[in-house]
Amino acid sequence: MPDSSAAAPATDDELALLDRYWRAANYLSVGQIYLLDNPLLEEPLAPEHIKPRLLGHWGTTPGLNFLYAHVNRAIRARDLDAVFLAGPGHGGPAVVANTYLEGVYSETYPHIGENTEGLRRLFRQFSFPGGIPSHAAPQTPGSINEGGELGYSLMHATGAVFDDPDLLAVCTIGDGEAETGPLATSWHAPAFLDAARDGAVLPILHLNGYKIANPTVLARLPEEQLLSLITGWGWEPFVVSGDDPVAMHRAFADVLDTVLDRIAAIQGAARGGGAPAGQPPRWPMIVFRSPKGWTGPKEVDGQQVEGTFRAHQVPLSEVRTNPEHLRQLEDWMKGYRVEELFDGEGRLLPELAALAPEGDRRMGANPHSNGGLLLKDLELPDFRDYAVSVDAPGSGQTPATTVLGEWLRDVMRLNPTRFRLFGPDETASNRLQAVFGVTNRAWQEPIVDTDDHLAPDGRVMEVLSEHLLQGWLEGYLLTGRHGLLNTYEAFAHIVDSMVNQHAKWLHDINGIPWRRDLASLNYLLSSHVWRQDHNGSSHQDPGFIDHVINKKAELARVYLPPDANCLLSVADHVLRSRQYINVIVAGKQPQLDYLTMDEAVAHCTRGVGIWDWASTTDGEPDVVLAAAGEIPTMEALAAADLLRQHLPDLKVRFVNVVDLMRLQSPDEHPHGMDDRDFDAVFTSDKPVVFAFHGYPTLIHRLTYKRQNHSQFHVHGYIEEGTTTTPFDMVMMNRLDRFSLAMHVIDRVPSLGSSQAVLRQRFMDDRLAARRYTRVHGEDDPAIANWTWPRP
Amino acid sequence: MPDSSAAAPATDDELALLDRYWRAANYLSVGQIYLLDNPLLEEPLAPEHIKPRLLGHWGTTPGLNFLYAHVNRAIRARDLDAVFLAGPGHGGPAVVANTYLEGVYSETYPHIGENTEGLRRLFRQFSFPGGIPSHAAPQTPGSINEGGELGYSLMHATGAVFDDPDLLAVCTIGDGEAETGPLATSWHAPAFLDAARDGAVLPILHLNGYKIANPTVLARLPEEQLLSLITGWGWEPFVVSGDDPVAMHRAFADVLDTVLDRIAAIQGAARGGGAPAGQPPRWPMIVFRSPKGWTGPKEVDGQQVEGTFRAHQVPLSEVRTNPEHLRQLEDWMKGYRVEELFDGEGRLLPELAALAPEGDRRMGANPHSNGGLLLKDLELPDFRDYAVSVDAPGSGQTPATTVLGEWLRDVMRLNPTRFRLFGPDETASNRLQAVFGVTNRAWQEPIVDTDDHLAPDGRVMEVLSEHLLQGWLEGYLLTGRHGLLNTYEAFAHIVDSMVNQHAKWLHDINGIPWRRDLASLNYLLSSHVWRQDHNGSSHQDPGFIDHVINKKAELARVYLPPDANCLLSVADHVLRSRQYINVIVAGKQPQLDYLTMDEAVAHCTRGVGIWDWASTTDGEPDVVLAAAGEIPTMEALAAADLLRQHLPDLKVRFVNVVDLMRLQSPDEHPHGMDDRDFDAVFTSDKPVVFAFHGYPTLIHRLTYKRQNHSQFHVHGYIEEGTTTTPFDMVMMNRLDRFSLAMHVIDRVPSLGSSQAVLRQRFMDDRLAARRYTRVHGEDDPAIANWTWPRP
Repeated sequence: MPDSSAAAPATDDELALLDRYWRAANYLSVGQIYLLDNPLLEEPLAPEHIKPRLLGHWGTTPGLNFLYAHVNRAIRARDLDAVFLAGPGHGGPAVVANTYLEGVYSETYPHIGENTEGLRRLFRQFSFPGGIPSHAAPQTPGSINEGGELGYSLMHATGAVFDDPDLLAVCTIGDGEAETGPLATSWHAPAFLDAARDGAVLPILHLNGYKIANPTVLARLPEEQLLSLITGWGWEPFVVSGDDPVAMHRAFADVLDTVLDRIAAIQGAARGGGAPAGQPPRWPMIVFRSPKGWTGPKEVDGQQVEGTFRAHQVPLSEVRTNPEHLRQLEDWMKGYRVEELFDGEGRLLPELAALAPEGDRRMGANPHSNGGLLLKDLELPDFRDYAVSVDAPGSGQTPATTVLGEWLRDVMRLNPTRFRLFGPDETASNRLQAVFGVTNRAWQEPIVDTDDHLAPDGRVMEVLSEHLLQGWLEGYLLTGRHGLLNTYEAFAHIVDSMVNQHAKWLHDINGIPWRRDLASLNYLLSSHVWRQDHNGSSHQDPGFIDHVINKKAELARVYLPPDANCLLSVADHVLRSRQYINVIVAGKQPQLDYLTMDEAVAHCTRGVGIWDWASTTDGEPDVVLAAAGEIPTMEALAAADLLRQHLPDLKVRFVNVVDLMRLQSPDEHPHGMDDRDFDAVFTSDKPVVFAFHGYPTLIHRLTYKRQNHSQFHVHGYIEEGTTTTPFDMVMMNRLDRFSLAMHVIDRVPSLGSSQAVLRQRFMDDRLAARRYTRVHGEDDPAIANWTWPRP
Repeated sequence: MPDSSAAAPATDDELALLDRYWRAANYLSVGQIYLLDNPLLEEPLAPEHIKPRLLGHWGTTPGLNFLYAHVNRAIRARDLDAVFLAGPGHGGPAVVANTYLEGVYSETYPHIGENTEGLRRLFRQFSFPGGIPSHAAPQTPGSINEGGELGYSLMHATGAVFDDPDLLAVCTIGDGEAETGPLATSWHAPAFLDAARDGAVLPILHLNGYKIANPTVLARLPEEQLLSLITGWGWEPFVVSGDDPVAMHRAFADVLDTVLDRIAAIQGAARGGGAPAGQPPRWPMIVFRSPKGWTGPKEVDGQQVEGTFRAHQVPLSEVRTNPEHLRQLEDWMKGYRVEELFDGEGRLLPELAALAPEGDRRMGANPHSNGGLLLKDLELPDFRDYAVSVDAPGSGQTPATTVLGEWLRDVMRLNPTRFRLFGPDETASNRLQAVFGVTNRAWQEPIVDTDDHLAPDGRVMEVLSEHLLQGWLEGYLLTGRHGLLNTYEAFAHIVDSMVNQHAKWLHDINGIPWRRDLASLNYLLSSHVWRQDHNGSSHQDPGFIDHVINKKAELARVYLPPDANCLLSVADHVLRSRQYINVIVAGKQPQLDYLTMDEAVAHCTRGVGIWDWASTTDGEPDVVLAAAGEIPTMEALAAADLLRQHLPDLKVRFVNVVDLMRLQSPDEHPHGMDDRDFDAVFTSDKPVVFAFHGYPTLIHRLTYKRQNHSQFHVHGYIEEGTTTTPFDMVMMNRLDRFSLAMHVIDRVPSLGSSQAVLRQRFMDDRLAARRYTRVHGEDDPAIANWTWPRP
């Protein structure tokens, strides 16, 4: 917890030193953007010292450097455990410069030493082929937020401090980024952050006025209106505004002391029991208004640059070819007075080096920013103890997520500080309500009698924003914890783009030796396409798995457990895993149980299996009936039942797929089956009628290289649906038992004349089922209550 | 423009009538949720009158009914041209009830008459198989916003009033919905809405306190804080709060009069020149706080329902089986005093029917809510006039979007009130800056000297929120206008889920006779994956086209024009189209020009073509080299050039694909080629090395049914990238000319020993290219400046 007694005001001498430190960071930032060589400007700057392609963003950088240096001072003064999130886009030069100044960069990358050659390499590698990206990326020490897509910094910061009471997340937010929807709703964090249980977030809204080509909305609001907005979000704003460095250092140092005192007081009150109940603390935040491209060229080619959108990227763009630009660059860099910053060997002067915190207190070295360092395995109760008893396949019904909820309850009980459950207002609706036996929904606002399971220290995160949930979970995972996000399958698409960015982060981790593996990003899609008949078309879309499968094979995992025991087995596997994006699709409605726990474990371990009990042959089949997904499995079994009744001699093999990635080749995915195993299951020449949970093309995409692929006939979601009954949904998409059975007989030429008779019968039965739902408003009970026949 | 002089305060008699109207709407809403029959409760309510499955949402409904009735009064009093957006989830029963009461429903669906049988059918069809959805869906007259996914109501309302100064969009916003990111940033509308040029949005934030299971954040904030927030967003809040209907009617009527007077005054000042410049008006909005499930059961089974989350869906859930629930339902419905609402034939009493506006002023009949009624073709300048002159293929270079920008400028000039351009701060960066010759970026906040092309009446919409841009554009299209959204390809994923919902809306329109076709939803992805080398990995993702292709074939169109003339031809086609989602991927960097305008038109019309000038045979080839996308086309041509140099006898056919949907079969997509045409281009037995813009699996997914599919070898994006050079990007993903050429020779067995020699040479050249970028920080000029050899 911050020690407020340590907060002596900064002296002028301290601030003068701090200004030099800032100049050093700015110098290094400009050097990264421009220089190939001559890092200390020991010779006159010449075109050959300049990078051929100038790729970097100056605009936001001096502000970030300023903030980082001031936070360093506070860390030293108060022994803070702090991480720094660079929200503004392309803030890479600043974070790289600062982690270099504090010594972390050279420790992490020894070839970038603290000397002239190290400086040269530091400059050269930035945005250079074979070098490092232009953002605060995974390659950047201390970073847990990439300023690329923009919008997620404040949610990452919030997730980072959950269950970590001593952590302070200093979150700089760009005023461009602040226009995004995800960032806009992130400001509601005080309604969910517990001052006792969680750490603190210090948002610093960095108003430099412009995006790429436009002013930003928040920067142009009259200040009174802006402060009203921030107050409305529940924060206490402190404004630091100006362009004179001396005045700004003084003002910012004082404000930072004040806000850290406030945070300490809030935490002290909450932890000492002195905080009023049902009223979230008014956390402080800072509005930092400084010119875009501060300290850079005032004017280039007769146009104002500093303080305008023209400072966004590279203020001097023709340095190699335009001598005037070259001279301006040299003047600009020399203006930082390099001789007051580095010694002749390129080492930061000791009085400046002393300004950085030490060891793990350096923000570049804080282990929270390399969460795998802190990550511990979850204590997992034995999922077998939660098994549903299954006497015979299809003999009982269980809502799979209810059973999972009981196991998750005990996961939450055993892991009170490193597992959270996230979902948009639907934990109970998704039948995971057992977790409320051990915790509550997090809620800091007033709680009234008619509320249900709310508490300030709850660990179930519910808010009607998939963005917030995803971003909080990412922040939680990035700092070394575990979690599960349950959401509507259709609305998982809301976070498609965030999944992309997290996937890129995980992919990069795999290539960075010093980054440690993170717990997987886990989704449970339980309100899925086939059971959104009551909510209608807007809630029906199975495409999230298509999206995830486009990610690197090393990252993407998709599981479609057909029953409760399989769901338990899969969930256990998923919560033990690292570095994956796991998607589980499993329903919340009562469904048939098929496998005993031992069978389920074996089946899920194999990922694909022949179900002998549902097959009419244990040898070479006439046709393969395959299914992936809970509802497709039931419909395919019902089709198998129809075929068994009407065509007892037809040799049907029944195959179930749990782990979708098994369908690929081993050279495409580590879970992939080799061709021999694949053919042993799906045959090399027999028709395969495949009932699939999602879009049919996905199965084709996974199997197109297989020898038997031309015989794969996939039924799945074909974008038909509305508010109707469950069976009407599968009929609308031709995934129903009758359609599957018809397709099977269409593919078996040997049936002769009985084919047409039987086909007509299935078609009649299908029409009758359709008519039944339209007349009665519910499914024919004979269909809705179908169970697999006992042997 | 609203006529403020008409605003006489409501009399008590008027309000008493209005209360009866409200009761009628509530009665119809409950009836829809529960009743199969006995619509006027002429006999005692019995289980057989109740639907077997109770699917509907009562919670938000009485509030929506209240608001709709009051807006009706204002429309009549002021002759307003108003549309009503039901933002809260599942508001279907309310909008259906109200459009029925105003007579529109029976006009639209004559089988649902204004009589007892009509009521019976109205009730029965709701959330019933073969009936209507539970949301305000396309099937609902007057609707332009589906309360399914939530979050888009205010952006739809804003887009609806652009360039339509007489329109008022009354936008009810649920307090659940208000937690979403997209809604949270929508509140910044005043910074973009021009009081002179655009219509007005009246947001009504409906705080009923709860979501499905939780309180909502905005409803629980202390009122002072909430008002501070709203003021901060730039609106003037008016609060109406309570649960006593009489007091609420009076309060709301007065507030509605006040806010409409304000709107009229703001518009009057802006249009009369009396508004201060650079200061957006403080538009009024209403906070409407009423109990969830207002007027419904107070208590069920001993638990409070009205005013709690338990009122969210169906307050009485066991009406068919629990006699006490049945009795409660009957009491509830009878409490609305049906005899004061409908006559014995089930017709709304005349004094109530008189409360609805007339003709097109009825919100269910307002043509803006069926935008196709108002839609007119754009005036399009002849794109051929903007052609780049091409003497020979590959002889010149043009940034395709610069040329497009010139044409778009004239599109904007010719269509000043029905075309807008949308983009996240990147119109100029995407080289469409020519449009600033005729308009500006819309901006209502202060404008200073260092700003560029901002004006209150600008028609280029820039904000750093893809959500806002998409939602505004949707609102604009839904009300009968045209537009184009240009954005980073990678960040288009931010709106994946919105695309889904709009696709569903378009799909439904196709099945609803009275809905008219809309202009297509058009994307220009110009900062695409292959030219984000400078921005790094976070900006690199081509998966948006995968996402769009999952939509119904009748809706999805993807174009990959290889050069500027093709882009012009495609853009013209796209802006003329209706009911599609068109995605164009085209770069902003200078690229080789290949086709004259005549050739481009012919090529784009065919969608796929053999380029004879790039082929080494006009007969049967040894191998097909195919490309789709600007960069893949260039690399494939460069590969063809290498092969021509080194293997002059190899018969290579060069194929270019502009219209991706041509690759599918005609039974899958209306643009699909039949097998004969396909084989005529791609052969039925020769290897095809395909250079593709996106994920390789997409090509396989589109072609897996083709005879020659097993010989398709696709190079595309394999999730590799960072901040580097353009050529390094294609090398990292093996889409470069050397990799393509190597793959071609690997597939031609007849080459014998020269194969190995040549392969080594290409590999060496590739390594040299890689080394060059790493040493020099830019691509080898011989590669970067490669052009197709002149014949």
